[in-house]
Amino acid sequence: MAKLTRRGVMMLAGTLSVVGVAKAQNGRPATDTERWGLYEIALDGPAQGNPFVDVSLSAVFSHDGQTVHVPGFYDGDGVYRLRFSPESEGVWQWRTMSNAEALTGHEGVFTARPATGRNHGPVRVTADGYHFAYADGTPFRQIGTTAYAWAQQSDDQCDRTLATLKATPFNKIRMCLYANVKAEPIEPFAYSGADPKDWDPARFNPMFFRRFEARVAQLQALGIEADIILHHPYDKTHGYAEMARADDERYLRYMIARLGAYRNVWWSMANEFDLVKAKSSADWDHLGQFVADTDPHQRLRSIHNCKAFFDNRRPWVTHSSIQNGMSVKDDTRAEIYRSVWEKPVVFDEVCYEGRIDLRWGNLTAEELVSRFWHGLIAGTYVGHGEVLTGENLSADGGWTGVGGHLRGDSAPRLAFLKTVMEAGPKPGIDPIDKWWDRHIGGQAGQYYLHYFGDEAPSEWSLDLPKPGLAGGEQFRADLIDTWNMTVTPVPGVFTMQKKDGYDFHDPARPTITLPGKPWLAVRIQRV
Amino acid sequence: MAKLTRRGVMMLAGTLSVVGVAKAQNGRPATDTERWGLYEIALDGPAQGNPFVDVSLSAVFSHDGQTVHVPGFYDGDGVYRLRFSPESEGVWQWRTMSNAEALTGHEGVFTARPATGRNHGPVRVTADGYHFAYADGTPFRQIGTTAYAWAQQSDDQCDRTLATLKATPFNKIRMCLYANVKAEPIEPFAYSGADPKDWDPARFNPMFFRRFEARVAQLQALGIEADIILHHPYDKTHGYAEMARADDERYLRYMIARLGAYRNVWWSMANEFDLVKAKSSADWDHLGQFVADTDPHQRLRSIHNCKAFFDNRRPWVTHSSIQNGMSVKDDTRAEIYRSVWEKPVVFDEVCYEGRIDLRWGNLTAEELVSRFWHGLIAGTYVGHGEVLTGENLSADGGWTGVGGHLRGDSAPRLAFLKTVMEAGPKPGIDPIDKWWDRHIGGQAGQYYLHYFGDEAPSEWSLDLPKPGLAGGEQFRADLIDTWNMTVTPVPGVFTMQKKDGYDFHDPARPTITLPGKPWLAVRIQRV
Repeated sequence: MAKLTRRGVMMLAGTLSVVGVAKAQNGRPATDTERWGLYEIALDGPAQGNPFVDVSLSAVFSHDGQTVHVPGFYDGDGVYRLRFSPESEGVWQWRTMSNAEALTGHEGVFTARPATGRNHGPVRVTADGYHFAYADGTPFRQIGTTAYAWAQQSDDQCDRTLATLKATPFNKIRMCLYANVKAEPIEPFAYSGADPKDWDPARFNPMFFRRFEARVAQLQALGIEADIILHHPYDKTHGYAEMARADDERYLRYMIARLGAYRNVWWSMANEFDLVKAKSSADWDHLGQFVADTDPHQRLRSIHNCKAFFDNRRPWVTHSSIQNGMSVKDDTRAEIYRSVWEKPVVFDEVCYEGRIDLRWGNLTAEELVSRFWHGLIAGTYVGHGEVLTGENLSADGGWTGVGGHLRGDSAPRLAFLKTVMEAGPKPGIDPIDKWWDRHIGGQAGQYYLHYFGDEAPSEWSLDLPKPGLAGGEQFRADLIDTWNMTVTPVPGVFTMQKKDGYDFHDPARPTITLPGKPWLAVRIQRV
Repeated sequence: MAKLTRRGVMMLAGTLSVVGVAKAQNGRPATDTERWGLYEIALDGPAQGNPFVDVSLSAVFSHDGQTVHVPGFYDGDGVYRLRFSPESEGVWQWRTMSNAEALTGHEGVFTARPATGRNHGPVRVTADGYHFAYADGTPFRQIGTTAYAWAQQSDDQCDRTLATLKATPFNKIRMCLYANVKAEPIEPFAYSGADPKDWDPARFNPMFFRRFEARVAQLQALGIEADIILHHPYDKTHGYAEMARADDERYLRYMIARLGAYRNVWWSMANEFDLVKAKSSADWDHLGQFVADTDPHQRLRSIHNCKAFFDNRRPWVTHSSIQNGMSVKDDTRAEIYRSVWEKPVVFDEVCYEGRIDLRWGNLTAEELVSRFWHGLIAGTYVGHGEVLTGENLSADGGWTGVGGHLRGDSAPRLAFLKTVMEAGPKPGIDPIDKWWDRHIGGQAGQYYLHYFGDEAPSEWSLDLPKPGLAGGEQFRADLIDTWNMTVTPVPGVFTMQKKDGYDFHDPARPTITLPGKPWLAVRIQRV
């Protein structure tokens, strides 16, 4: 991968058509793109005044009765762009509208071809309401990580991060648009004005966004969702989180227009929203609804907390994005979030693997992996983080601050976990008999997963909750060592009979012998 | 207490002025009542047609710039009543409005005297948002119980229930308006029509409501809040939960007019709302908001779940009323409900003390009491129930079905718990360092309560989370045996010093010795 100098960003962008981005070539729009790919129209227009404010531009894309209104954006140097990702295969027509004569009334046609390779479309919430799947129906088994400011580091560091990601199970990464950590401060800023104290919220710096969107495209090529954090409370230099309402809306519109057509984009309204002094919950609610109303591609939307939860029942919130590591020490805790919000739950921050003397950064790998498993059997999802540098995150938080290399031991175990998830029920694992401390997730009648965490019993009663069972069903069991990454079949089958008013079991072999060590799970699958 | 025959209800009502109900005497309204007492105006009006539908009646009560619009109701036999509970002491003026000439334009004056005795006013949510207090500021430390159909049982059985309540710590009782259990079927029905299949939702049966409100008044005399369940899903005979929207609204308006002036009334929109097939969450939301808009006394409002939670962030919900017993096996679970809804949490149903073969009715007293303590240190409240009859609740659920005697062992321990609560911080106990598994509730810097549940350690590190501490503070500790109901002071004081980035302790005596048995708590109070 070429190093990302300013010129390099442009070069890189030119190469991205190989991963589904159909860009303008020689001043003419492309004639086709993949379904869920990125179709771009570039137009020359006015460069005088402030084009970010003075010029409105949008296009209508239509196909077979569908009509999508897509906002355009100004990319500097008199160039305007429109980006669209078609939901359906076939011929799409488009026509532009603008208050600038040079930009209005352009029209064209292109063909959305069938998706190829790893292009499964954008991730959406499944019909049952608690899981994720790509648009083509492939389950999305979320194994997230966080590297807040990786995208704003040097090109070398970004290359290291991407190489690391390529070798890990992570399929989503939380990343800030505005860097919150600077190991190697990188120009340019997001807005014009060389002086951080004298920036103009009405003049974006296209170079900054171009560099960022190249990262998003690189993630897309790796099959990784970019969970873009739009605001955070840590910026004492610029105060981007303290912009006025109109500036926030302009910023969000710009992000939606520039980045929303990348199918791997998710919108995170803020990191630790409750620490942003300048914005109330009502402000966040307004801005979240603004994104829902403005984004033609309807990317996933969430907002991440510190000590106070947002009302994740709000209509614009597609899934919860939670910080509270203690909730995934126990699946019964984790499940509560599903029941109260009735949406997918992602515990995006559950403390980090590390050895720093702050309690959010000193998890053992065993404990971090364990939180993923507890979350899994609760029907929820968990995120990884690592601060294995011995230093405070405000300087260089290791992976979770600035990306680069992983030094910990959790990632291989999360890759193993992912293989278990992928071999499990679609669209995902649900808690079974949720409010009775059964600690079993799966799909009633078909698939059961019990996780022991740090308990180390020498035997377990194979009792299955009655939903989905009538008696006579046969199951096989596997012993899963989640730390040593082994799956050991238990010989023979278990034939279920009613045990009492709540359970079924096999009276001939009511228990399974266990090796008496921690981090084990038992998987029971219908024969 | 006189037995409640039909005539007895009327006699009883006549005697209730002793507990703050100022009723009409000899056809003339009373000239005074206590603040938060019940002031009643009786008027003669039309008896023909259907007065429940044909006649509108309300009054405006005014005092010192306050104006309250109060709905009246028809009480049968040509008698109409208006009931009002004054929030402020002093002289109140009133004037009636009606579409019936005989009822409109009446006016009068009365004086609201200072409250006396156990009259502390209605219970409200405290300013911090998580606790309850009476209107005069006295904390309301909720120790609830449930006896669904006690009020519809025979007069003898009701007397037994009241005598039991008088000897217990319970200060709130959940009770249905429409009986859901009938050990001794009692006439009359709530609506006219002797045949259960041929009732008229537009014609209330005043005798039914008169009998019910006498129960509410009796509870008030005992200082017990009546948490009135307005609907439930168990009525297969009449189908009261399947009324049309207009009938529901008429019913709610009638309840508000008849019962809302009793200061001990709370409105529970439904028991197990999610099992009522005929009503959606949107229906409940409409009806809850209707009560909020209609009730001049703004009594507390909640809605109780079975397997799905209502959105307790909805503006009309004053507090959550939860069924999920597993949530109070662990304060960290219980706390989540506070954080997600930011309102008081009452775990009104956590399974019942009993020995039936259904899992919701087989708690030991130890386990039920333990759930109260876990809930307490989470900053939440818990409810009691008992089905110690050996029989299924659908026939006779013991106390929680039909009231009567308590047979279990939990009530004295809950009385002991209440003394601990009453000696604790106002308005209540909050979780301290809530998301770090500290299992400590209290008031930072002043008061700490740690509960061990079924763990039986022989020593405990007296580490206090840093909020509220600077070093040098002195504390005394008590060992509380929650089952044997003893408080044993630990000799001497503990002088706090910083231990690490998160804790303070006394390096001279960092631990407390414990007796190694379950159901213990440690209380630490500032000297």
